[in-house]
Amino acid sequence: MIIVMKAQAGQAEIDNVIRMVEALDYRAHVIRGVERTVVACVGDERGEGHSLAHLESVAGVERVMPVLKSFKLASREVRPEGSIVHVNGVAIGGQRLAVIAGPCAVESRSQVEAAADAVKRAGAHLMRGGAYKPRTSPYSFQGMENEGLVLLENAGHRVGLPVVTEIMDPHDIDLVAEHADMLQVGARNAQNFSLLRRLGKVKKPILLKRGMSTRLEEFLMAAEYILSEGNPNVVLCERGIRTFETATRNTLDLNAVPLLKEWTHLPVIVDPSHGTGIWSLVTPMALASIAAGADGIMIEVHPEPQTALSDGPQQLKPERFADLMAALRPLAQAVGRTL
Amino acid sequence: MIIVMKAQAGQAEIDNVIRMVEALDYRAHVIRGVERTVVACVGDERGEGHSLAHLESVAGVERVMPVLKSFKLASREVRPEGSIVHVNGVAIGGQRLAVIAGPCAVESRSQVEAAADAVKRAGAHLMRGGAYKPRTSPYSFQGMENEGLVLLENAGHRVGLPVVTEIMDPHDIDLVAEHADMLQVGARNAQNFSLLRRLGKVKKPILLKRGMSTRLEEFLMAAEYILSEGNPNVVLCERGIRTFETATRNTLDLNAVPLLKEWTHLPVIVDPSHGTGIWSLVTPMALASIAAGADGIMIEVHPEPQTALSDGPQQLKPERFADLMAALRPLAQAVGRTL
Amino acid sequence: MIIVMKAQAGQAEIDNVIRMVEALDYRAHVIRGVERTVVACVGDERGEGHSLAHLESVAGVERVMPVLKSFKLASREVRPEGSIVHVNGVAIGGQRLAVIAGPCAVESRSQVEAAADAVKRAGAHLMRGGAYKPRTSPYSFQGMENEGLVLLENAGHRVGLPVVTEIMDPHDIDLVAEHADMLQVGARNAQNFSLLRRLGKVKKPILLKRGMSTRLEEFLMAAEYILSEGNPNVVLCERGIRTFETATRNTLDLNAVPLLKEWTHLPVIVDPSHGTGIWSLVTPMALASIAAGADGIMIEVHPEPQTALSDGPQQLKPERFADLMAALRPLAQAVGRTL
Amino acid sequence: MIIVMKAQAGQAEIDNVIRMVEALDYRAHVIRGVERTVVACVGDERGEGHSLAHLESVAGVERVMPVLKSFKLASREVRPEGSIVHVNGVAIGGQRLAVIAGPCAVESRSQVEAAADAVKRAGAHLMRGGAYKPRTSPYSFQGMENEGLVLLENAGHRVGLPVVTEIMDPHDIDLVAEHADMLQVGARNAQNFSLLRRLGKVKKPILLKRGMSTRLEEFLMAAEYILSEGNPNVVLCERGIRTFETATRNTLDLNAVPLLKEWTHLPVIVDPSHGTGIWSLVTPMALASIAAGADGIMIEVHPEPQTALSDGPQQLKPERFADLMAALRPLAQAVGRTL
Repeated sequence: MIIVMKAQAGQAEIDNVIRMVEALDYRAHVIRGVERTVVACVGDERGEGHSLAHLESVAGVERVMPVLKSFKLASREVRPEGSIVHVNGVAIGGQRLAVIAGPCAVESRSQVEAAADAVKRAGAHLMRGGAYKPRTSPYSFQGMENEGLVLLENAGHRVGLPVVTEIMDPHDIDLVAEHADMLQVGARNAQNFSLLRRLGKVKKPILLKRGMSTRLEEFLMAAEYILSEGNPNVVLCERGIRTFETATRNTLDLNAVPLLKEWTHLPVIVDPSHGTGIWSLVTPMALASIAAGADGIMIEVHPEPQTALSDGPQQLKPERFADLMAALRPLAQAVGRTL
Repeated sequence: MIIVMKAQAGQAEIDNVIRMVEALDYRAHVIRGVERTVVACVGDERGEGHSLAHLESVAGVERVMPVLKSFKLASREVRPEGSIVHVNGVAIGGQRLAVIAGPCAVESRSQVEAAADAVKRAGAHLMRGGAYKPRTSPYSFQGMENEGLVLLENAGHRVGLPVVTEIMDPHDIDLVAEHADMLQVGARNAQNFSLLRRLGKVKKPILLKRGMSTRLEEFLMAAEYILSEGNPNVVLCERGIRTFETATRNTLDLNAVPLLKEWTHLPVIVDPSHGTGIWSLVTPMALASIAAGADGIMIEVHPEPQTALSDGPQQLKPERFADLMAALRPLAQAVGRTL
Repeated sequence: MIIVMKAQAGQAEIDNVIRMVEALDYRAHVIRGVERTVVACVGDERGEGHSLAHLESVAGVERVMPVLKSFKLASREVRPEGSIVHVNGVAIGGQRLAVIAGPCAVESRSQVEAAADAVKRAGAHLMRGGAYKPRTSPYSFQGMENEGLVLLENAGHRVGLPVVTEIMDPHDIDLVAEHADMLQVGARNAQNFSLLRRLGKVKKPILLKRGMSTRLEEFLMAAEYILSEGNPNVVLCERGIRTFETATRNTLDLNAVPLLKEWTHLPVIVDPSHGTGIWSLVTPMALASIAAGADGIMIEVHPEPQTALSDGPQQLKPERFADLMAALRPLAQAVGRTL
Repeated sequence: MIIVMKAQAGQAEIDNVIRMVEALDYRAHVIRGVERTVVACVGDERGEGHSLAHLESVAGVERVMPVLKSFKLASREVRPEGSIVHVNGVAIGGQRLAVIAGPCAVESRSQVEAAADAVKRAGAHLMRGGAYKPRTSPYSFQGMENEGLVLLENAGHRVGLPVVTEIMDPHDIDLVAEHADMLQVGARNAQNFSLLRRLGKVKKPILLKRGMSTRLEEFLMAAEYILSEGNPNVVLCERGIRTFETATRNTLDLNAVPLLKEWTHLPVIVDPSHGTGIWSLVTPMALASIAAGADGIMIEVHPEPQTALSDGPQQLKPERFADLMAALRPLAQAVGRTL
């Protein structure tokens, strides 16, 4: 931690800061600059209760600047070679890309089976589908819930694909973990810490989506909640952030991909369906995601998007998803990956 | 709903859209413009499954524009005179302003009692204090939890103040509702719909904070989740949004105050402590909040901010909070309110 | 400057950084922490060519953190008592508030004269009006240009009000300075450094608006461009920033008011017309601006907003502006100002 | 235009709106919905003075929604096959990608010559280099100005590369147009309409960068300023937008690439150097840009980034740029382009 004193701070104020810092087990180094005095604090700044941020309210202090990023277990330094997360036989994070595809929401047996057939045929490795849907309006379709969960499991496993589905309520964890191969945390729950903490005790891998306004360091701290409770199997998913731009549903932040790959050993995938909200942008942005270094993509595919009960505008028809997969193959090769 | 067709859309595509719209119980009016054809759809666009957004994926459709805001029960039209929410004898939303004050987190019996004495003495009407703390880092102080809840209740009630505390986990609802007079939903759970839905069945009033990236219409839809489950006692709280500006912790969006007062009958208060993150800005922004038309404010007050276990830089010392209250009195009068 | 070395940086890399830093006339203090080594650099970090940011590309360096804000002449430390800017007899920045009012654009002699009469009668101190309009579309009304300039000057001076108008093109500076009492730099030119530099050589006061995505430190650096060329008469104007919220035209950042007043000696005013874009929000936000500590406000007033050639939705009718002024009077008094 | 009336609007108010709309040469269609009446207006909504936005201030009107995008000449509909812009023999916008590379700023003859040799050797098609630098601080290096211009021209032409440089001040247009093959408008001048208008009369192609907070529709309106003055040779450049994320200098919005390619016939390139601000992210994001469909990239390359007078952290060393070009070759082929 670096503590910058105010221009007019006197010696008594500096001494007081030193005393407070040392009481928290830091060693203090005082550096007198041309216009400001700085107190550099050496110690374990990521330990419990060891933040010095509250010193900003101490007389004479202008600013407290942390030196370290606050995540530990998620840090690349812990596992420089990178992690591979296994989802019922499918590896995410290795040289081979992982493609997750399926409808936004499970709507019926026939719909989810048609989707399963389509994504399997086109070469997807996992199937997605929402049983519990976080909708902005309480009057919108909220998902088929438990029934949808079973339909998804059956449809996916029938064609040999592990299934991923979103968990919204801690009460449902056991049930969802029983039927799904991977549990997804949606953007709106990206900082629902009590949910994250419980998922740290689950034996299934977690697909953690970035929140709409989550900074990358906070994103890794959300992963840290899961990791620190004992579940090491976390895959990160960039899905677009909220910005001033309204032409697209979200702004897909692909900068996040290579930066996260530098900062963390966890696998990183991208969801260009939510990241754009417009089906015609999904394929170019899926290609861009892989070119940026992502370990996989998650794509919404619906047998009939124009009748979808949610997110119709961003779901691909099966034939367009097949085209996406065809376009992805040479691109994967060009960046040294396989599909 | 207004459906804008693409420039090159043909008659077959227009006919197809009309057919789909009528199948959803809308009447379609076709208007041929200079460059585009528009299909205006008359019907109940806020009914379940009645959104037409998915038509954006239909051939020939460029855009679907809703005509109505999507909230109903929260709408000002429902109760033009405005709602008053009663919290154990204290009214929020009337001519008299409501001041909620107290520490960010309950840290000890002596701390919470000192805070209760101080805020009561200065004239606050309700006491706040966090027992469960949503912290970005799993390694930070997470609150005294159940023990903190009881300490808060005792400290507040001893000085005659109803207490408000944050609820993070649906599992804790019964316990928190037993000890607190008002339950707060924090910014990170602003779109935790399963939590909101459960709070709609609780018999205590809810203080709903705006999320860091929640648009005002979405904020009212979050309230709608609570209202539509049967709990009419919701107070909205603007607490700053996340923007590109980093000089302050958040950007306090006071535009939200008069706009929400136009759109909804629910009371609106402001939290300038989180909205600024800097104690020296809290008093001016508290005054500005009331001048903008807020029904109250929520202020973080700590007996010793420089030792606080969370959010030290934004908590006021008791004497500064007393100064804030003194400054607020004439301003309240100037805008026709009482304190 | 604080230079944070990477975890794996070796002694050779640290030595190299020290050598580079010393070559730029800094003294280097090396502090070895638990996980990182930090090099604290003492020297004049605001001198020309003295930034160390480029060291982020040197081997072994993780991050370079400046200790000081980069503005100098605009800094509060330079003039702790605050500056007062005089505009043809009207003071901005003192105990008395300054109200600038008038139409978005000068549209005709009768319109600008009606506006001048109305704002004078209601108690405004200066008159605004655009002769050159920065419009998003080249097909929109671009202002009456030179003719409008003269109409504005005549209308304002006839009723005894100094006039403020926007300058967009360096070619027009002499002409505008001849007719206007204060030159305004609009949000879109907030970082048009060649314009700012020229305005630093003008003998008229400058009203500098914050850009739509300008951070406060950058805003003061824009003022610094003008100050450093010799023109000390700069008034800052918060006019809303661009965020994800679309319910209002901009997000008025009133946090900026008390923070700028801490950082700089320059007067600070607020434009709630552009800051909201909605006429019904203008009065509450004008009151909030003054409560937050602003030295004045700038309000768009048009005799007939529903026929305005630009920004109709945010312009006040004369009678509503008179109501605003009436509401402002007791509020000003409550916060120790006069009108 | 679609005009949504307020719920409580009466017939007199509706009639008044119809009268006003018809006076502006629109035909009005009244559609009575379940909760609102809507007035659909048929006419040329992009003509001068034909915006109806000001009607939002008319009694009884809730909202005015445009049906059309406001750009015309930039629209894809005008030239569905796409435009190719020729820069002194180099085509931008065709099947072959265009790579522009060079230092952020021209610093000396030897530096710019070393850069020219390096980028030419690695396969770039155009050379960039700043002679006039828009710097946040007036105390930072502002560029070598006219001298830099000549050095750039000589260095580029010596190795056979056309040169691109930024124009900041209208006064410099003739001089810059004499020495440079393409004139660049930087992000801070993206809505400097008087500069754009003048560039519409220049005979050289323009590289127009997106502003930090420019929406895509506004970006095309900025291009429209140039096009409508008679210069058809505009290349658009996505360079990152300003968001809440601080881990990168900007958020590169690659969604913009495929969306702009749908909306406009103008070529679109990407600047991942400014879009990330971190050299190690430049290569992955350059690849992602091309995968997303960009017609080219602009890359900052400096012989010795660690001594650069500006933007050191984001400039590539020559050998890293050569690696980027090597990685780009197979990727270009995978997406059907050549280099």
